Amino acid sequence: MKKYTVGVLGATGLVGKEILNILLERQFPVEKMRLLASKRSAGSVQSFGTESITVEEATPTCFEGIDILFASAGGSVSKTFAQAAIDQGCIMIDNTSAFRMQEDVPLVVPEVNAHALKNHKGLIANPNCSTAQLVVVLKPLHEKFGLKRVTVSTYQAVSGAGHQAVQELYMQSEQVLAGQDPVAQILPAPIAFNLVPFIGSFLENGYTDEEMKMTHETRKILEADVPTSATCIRVPVANGHSESVNLEFEQPVSPDAIREVLRHTPGVVVQDDVANGHFPAPRAISGQDPVYVGRIREDVSHERAANLWIVADNLRKGAALNAVQIAESLITQQLL
Amino acid sequence: MKKYTVGVLGATGLVGKEILNILLERQFPVEKMRLLASKRSAGSVQSFGTESITVEEATPTCFEGIDILFASAGGSVSKTFAQAAIDQGCIMIDNTSAFRMQEDVPLVVPEVNAHALKNHKGLIANPNCSTAQLVVVLKPLHEKFGLKRVTVSTYQAVSGAGHQAVQELYMQSEQVLAGQDPVAQILPAPIAFNLVPFIGSFLENGYTDEEMKMTHETRKILEADVPTSATCIRVPVANGHSESVNLEFEQPVSPDAIREVLRHTPGVVVQDDVANGHFPAPRAISGQDPVYVGRIREDVSHERAANLWIVADNLRKGAALNAVQIAESLITQQLL
Repeated sequence: MKKYTVGVLGATGLVGKEILNILLERQFPVEKMRLLASKRSAGSVQSFGTESITVEEATPTCFEGIDILFASAGGSVSKTFAQAAIDQGCIMIDNTSAFRMQEDVPLVVPEVNAHALKNHKGLIANPNCSTAQLVVVLKPLHEKFGLKRVTVSTYQAVSGAGHQAVQELYMQSEQVLAGQDPVAQILPAPIAFNLVPFIGSFLENGYTDEEMKMTHETRKILEADVPTSATCIRVPVANGHSESVNLEFEQPVSPDAIREVLRHTPGVVVQDDVANGHFPAPRAISGQDPVYVGRIREDVSHERAANLWIVADNLRKGAALNAVQIAESLITQQLL
Repeated sequence: MKKYTVGVLGATGLVGKEILNILLERQFPVEKMRLLASKRSAGSVQSFGTESITVEEATPTCFEGIDILFASAGGSVSKTFAQAAIDQGCIMIDNTSAFRMQEDVPLVVPEVNAHALKNHKGLIANPNCSTAQLVVVLKPLHEKFGLKRVTVSTYQAVSGAGHQAVQELYMQSEQVLAGQDPVAQILPAPIAFNLVPFIGSFLENGYTDEEMKMTHETRKILEADVPTSATCIRVPVANGHSESVNLEFEQPVSPDAIREVLRHTPGVVVQDDVANGHFPAPRAISGQDPVYVGRIREDVSHERAANLWIVADNLRKGAALNAVQIAESLITQQLL
């Protein structure tokens, strides 16, 4: 089996580290691993399996020899280095929002639209975390029943905002437990025992960019005009994004029919055990690959609608796992 | 001004204590206060302003002389004592779900349907916490624009499950911070740094009773057939319920028009400051009376729909405050 030189740009971040974990777990055919990061992190040593690898500073000329570059160091870093990486022969799988909506960049969740990889020009975008776990569920339901409209409210973990946000959640929690006021430095407002009712920056229509990503990316990945409206809320959970989703179909669809479809959907686990009150919760599924779905029921306010509860590890299916799956799909499809 | 003998059944619970606070805050005309609770709590002493009052055991013959009885000791306690209390001359304002949907029992949020109190037969029901804060917002919007459908996802605080649930949240949080597994005894699953994706017990249609309360109570309080579907989720917040609400109107309605109506709605505060990222969050509004609304925006998936974020103190507007407001309205309307 052919092996590849793999680069991880943003190797010291939460997603970068998770990419390394997942490459090992899935025995990705790595010939050589190169870890790239900002000057600040360069020189530090990180382990990859039994290897100890020194983190290199990312520079415009550092990408020579890398076959697959995973980028998760933020949008501006991806914008800075993308063209250089492609010119030096990398296929770059970008975890940031920098290029997702660019027409000639495939935006891919392999279970949903692996075929879109065929058109890649060296750059492939990984969707926003909340979108990735959503479209895995939407795709088979849209194919089978026809989706008319999606309304989603998210319950997003702080790990989506990085390692420091997780530390802040824990630190603030200790402050509150000690009777002190929590101090917010990373997230825009206190999150311990609280909610932050917006994620990202605001657009003219009153939505945040995080919310509009779900609208635009869902449409691009499904390759269908499924109108989607999102409300994105940060919750005091370390890891694992949850979504309360209302789906309007072209026809009435029973919960059993939805369960039946999802039970046969790759990457999805139906966890909808009413008898034992067993449903997906973020702490329980953190560290796991599948997208979990429960609380599947008819919408009592609309005969053609249904409610679902979708939970996934945002660092995995929402980021690192999906990126590695894209690389695997490139290999399977001989596109590398 | 006439003064009343007031009884609080369930005086040692979170809501009971909040009722005492609010009666004092609002200078409710109390002639005499009687505190009633289960045998277990009887004999303990609780303060009411400068008074120290010994908690009495609630018995079928203890209600003589009480003008207004606030009941918040659980549905079965209310069922046990309601008839006796009424027979002994009380007007009972019941905070439990025991009688809410009974046709001859007014279910009242004073800002919305105070007129329904006119038909009371000694028993008045206080709505479910999530419903109370919702209908205050829905009512003026329905009157002005016509509501076709309501879809709500809740982010409910643990205080809704009582004092022990709040303690459990804090205890479990300490366990997690110490690297231990959280132990769930009060809530049905671990809540610290987690979500519990159901509240209450399950009905045949896959909804919980908490969710169907929102469907049924909203319709009864609005006195209008506004189809409502709810997904109720417990979040690791001590106090303050939040709701992500999607409203479908009969016609397109602009966010500005919604804000304009809500700015003139008694009991509602619009907190929708995009420039400063200032929106309602549960920790900030805990202990306050109003229902806060923010994140008001068009639904990009539907031309006649809008999204809102509604937050209120569930122990206040969702329970104790609303109950006291009912008593005040009875006085104002000379129905006592």
